[in-house]
Formats: sequence, structure tokens, C-alpha cells
Amino acid sequence: MEVIRSAAEMQKKSFAFIRESKTIGFVPTMGFFHEGHVALMEQARRENDLVITSIFVNPLQFGPNEDYERYPRNEANDLALAADAGVDLVFIPSAAEMYPAKMLISLTIEERANVLCGRTRPGHFEGVLTVLAKLFHLIQPTKAYFGMKDAQQFSVVSALVDNLNFPVQLIAVPTVRESDGLAKSSRNVNLDEKERKEAVSLYKALQHGRQLVVDGEKNPAIIVKEVKEQIASQLNGKMDYVELWSYPALEPVSVIDRQVILAIAVQFEKARLIDNLVFDERGCIGSQIR
Amino acid sequence: MEVIRSAAEMQKKSFAFIRESKTIGFVPTMGFFHEGHVALMEQARRENDLVITSIFVNPLQFGPNEDYERYPRNEANDLALAADAGVDLVFIPSAAEMYPAKMLISLTIEERANVLCGRTRPGHFEGVLTVLAKLFHLIQPTKAYFGMKDAQQFSVVSALVDNLNFPVQLIAVPTVRESDGLAKSSRNVNLDEKERKEAVSLYKALQHGRQLVVDGEKNPAIIVKEVKEQIASQLNGKMDYVELWSYPALEPVSVIDRQVILAIAVQFEKARLIDNLVFDERGCIGSQIR
Repeated sequence: MEVIRSAAEMQKKSFAFIRESKTIGFVPTMGFFHEGHVALMEQARRENDLVITSIFVNPLQFGPNEDYERYPRNEANDLALAADAGVDLVFIPSAAEMYPAKMLISLTIEERANVLCGRTRPGHFEGVLTVLAKLFHLIQPTKAYFGMKDAQQFSVVSALVDNLNFPVQLIAVPTVRESDGLAKSSRNVNLDEKERKEAVSLYKALQHGRQLVVDGEKNPAIIVKEVKEQIASQLNGKMDYVELWSYPALEPVSVIDRQVILAIAVQFEKARLIDNLVFDERGCIGSQIR
Repeated sequence: MEVIRSAAEMQKKSFAFIRESKTIGFVPTMGFFHEGHVALMEQARRENDLVITSIFVNPLQFGPNEDYERYPRNEANDLALAADAGVDLVFIPSAAEMYPAKMLISLTIEERANVLCGRTRPGHFEGVLTVLAKLFHLIQPTKAYFGMKDAQQFSVVSALVDNLNFPVQLIAVPTVRESDGLAKSSRNVNLDEKERKEAVSLYKALQHGRQLVVDGEKNPAIIVKEVKEQIASQLNGKMDYVELWSYPALEPVSVIDRQVILAIAVQFEKARLIDNLVFDERGCIGSQIR
């Protein structure tokens, strides 16, 4: 498995792969790999000639009071897990390598970014859009893999790729969970023991909300209210939001008559956790995300 | 020579070319070809396996009071000229093909766009950035060719490509001129006979300004003043601006000690003409633009 740290070298390499007519599966990450990342790499492995993953904690997508410095990093372990998953090349640029000069160009998104996590993270998705545009150009992937735990990110990136005709196919991969249902996250290591036990209530509450739809409830307000009550009764972490929107457009729905996302964010002492379920008007979790 | 009007078909075709390891030279245009466009195509022809040109009058880069509807069009003649120049494929999408849905993503540029033509054309370069990002993704060129008549555009597009690591090499091609020095432009057809005669004064005034630098003048204010006076004495069209900036950064210069652009815009009755010269601190027109 090759490691490249230079942007120019990475792009040169991807040109070489393309000349060899290799399909490239790309898994963009911020490192500190867990089974969620590995699932992305394994799917990329099955579907492409070559698998490239990037490890880059992108300063542009962190707000001034967010956890950029505290974001967990473990490159040696990441490289071992990537090699195990069959990754061919890991791109690990420095911030200076990705942003060598003042950025004059900005990518912004008008919709989809002002709900859910976007509301409390101004500039976050602009940072995500910018770094992904750069990575897509450096790596020139055939397919790019994203976990559905960051469903809003997938919605935003879909808009980027569709609006600007990026020559890449986006693949949404279901969230990988612990045995008790907690969504895998690099930030889970920042939970204390009590918080870890409470954290399972996010997924339980989502399942409860989905079950209401399965049972015939179509009123988003009632579902959100019930989910909030269930979470409030089961954890001490500060509830950031419980929201329900159409998916992937992330528009308000007055009645559940199409695919929607039910999403939760909870702020624990040292970790902010998010989770979601995307399901249709019957409560079924579909295979077709976009 | 092939003509493609569908974006999806264009991208499929560019993938096929890439699989065949063909280098692609791309000339993006708004059509109504003149020798300036032909020069771009001919240079692309010399430097690439395949030459693709696009004809698309991009509504996004025209302001509400600009000449989008009036912009001259002549597809049949364009196709004949492109074929003569050795173009392999012409991409002619409709506006609906390029913008099938509401655009959620915007590309903006913080610097370089607020001087020269950008000052009086708010949103113009954002429209240019957006359409070029789309065209670069659809056509996946090895090299893309731009005329230096739109020097500010080349500066802005350079920022786009550099900041976002687009896998394309930009080539700046010198302005093609009529025998009397008037820069070739699709908008020249909108000049009446008297205006056409006056229009040569733009280039003459630029040459005068450059000569001042050759002769040792390093004060931008003096050069701009002399150029303005010369133009005012020679034409009735409304002078829009005479400006001098560093190039390609388009920053103010207090003394001419690096590469600069001297640029003019004049509003005639039915045509707004622009012209410029890029030269170094000795007044030499260099081959190295970026």
C-alpha cells in the first residue's frame, strides 16, 4: 500500500491510473478509522480496480470553537486498517499542501446546508464542498463512497456533483453500528462510560420514530415530539436537535408522503454525536438514497 | 466533425477519449467565431490528439440589463469555421441542458473580480466560474485555451483551477487583432462605420501607455491619466474605465515593478469593447502570463 503526501504527486498518480484505464474507488476521510470507514473501503474494494482513501482533517470545515485540534488522529493504526481493507493508496496531505495559498474561490450552497448540523455549524458545508472539490480533482475517482451517518453531507455533496457535473459517481453506504445500535464514530472515544451507555438512546429514539411511520403516523410534528420526549427521558446530554425533512432535498414536509430523514444531534461533555434514519412514507429504509 | 448537444453524452464521450489515452484540447466559447477563436482552435489542434470546442452563450454570466438576448449567434458559420480549424467535436448544449434544475451550488471569487469589467458586471465572473467548472467536468480536457483579450477572465479562471486543483492546464493565447490593431471581438459587428474607425484608438492608447513604461515611466497614475486623455481626444464612445493592476493578481500597484495589465473598456452605442496589454516593468510583453 502506497502513501502519498504531495498533492501534485497524487494528481500525477491518478493521471497514470486513468491512462491504464483503472477504475478508482475513493473514500475521503478525516482518519481515526473505525468499522464505518472500513465498510466504505471494503465496498470500494469490491467495485473498483483501485482503492484510494484520503486522510485529511480539513481545517476549513471546522468552526473557530469546534474540535479541529481535539479531533482524534492515529495515522499508524489507520494505515494498518486501510491495508487490511485492501486499500491501494492512502493520500495524507498536510493543511499546507491542500491550502498552499490564500483561497480566492469559495463554494457555497444555498439550500440543504441551513438545517440539521448546518444551522449550528456556519461554514461547515462550504468547507466540505471545497475540500471535496479539491480531492475529486486530485484523485479523479470513478466512484466516491460516503457513509450515511453524515446524511446531510451526502445530500450536499450530491448537489455539488449534480450541479457542477463532476465526473464521479457517488455511493451512499449505510451507517455501521455497534452491537447495541450506536452509530460508529471517531468521536465516540470522547464519551465517558455513563455517556456511552446513554448514547444508545439516539438510535432507539430514531427507531421509535420510524416505527410510528410504519404504524401509520404521517404527521412530522408528532413524530419529532415523541422522539424528543423519548431522548429527554433517557439521557443527560444536551439535545441539539431532532428534525425531520424530505431527503435528499432537506425541505420541510407537512405530511410524510416521500422519502424523509429523521435526524438527531446530542451534545455530550466532550463529544457531539449525530445519527439519522432515512426512510420512505411507509417507514421502509430504501436502497435508493438519491 | 461531430456535434453533441447533450451534457450526458458529452461526458460519456470524454470518458471514452480518456480511456483511449487521447489528450483533449478544449476551447470554450460563446460562438460567433472570428479569427480570435480560430487561433485558439489552431493552437489546440497543434498541441493535442483531439480538439473540442463548446458553443454556449451562458445566461449565468450576463446581468439583467446586458446583451444576453442580443449576443450574436451564427451556428452554421461557427461549425464551418471549426471544421476548417480542425476541431473534432463541437459541444452545443442548450441552457436547459446546462442548467436542468435550480442551481444550489455557487462559485464565488473574493479578489480579482471586483476591478475592471467585474466592477460593473456583478455576478459576471461567478457565472463564468460556474459554467467553466461544469464544462471542465463534462469535457475533461488536458489543456484549455483562453484568449488574452479577456485577461481578467484568464486571471479568474487561473484562480479557480489553482485553488480547486482542476486537472487541466490553462493556456493563454495572445489577442488576435485586425490589421489596424482593433482586437477581434464578436461584438465588433455591432459598431457602426464611424465607431469602427474610432475603435482603433483603444489599442493605440494601450500601445502609448506601454511605450511610456518602455521609456521609463513607472508611475501608474501618470500612465492611466495619459491613456485616458488620448482616448478622450479620439473617440465619442463613453469611456468605461482605464485601469492598471498587477497581473494576474489584479492588485493595486503604486509603482510598476512587476507584470501588470493596462486595460480599457469603452461603451459604444450598441457594443461595449474591451482591450488590454499585459507587460512587465520594462514594458515587455512576456510569454509567461501566469
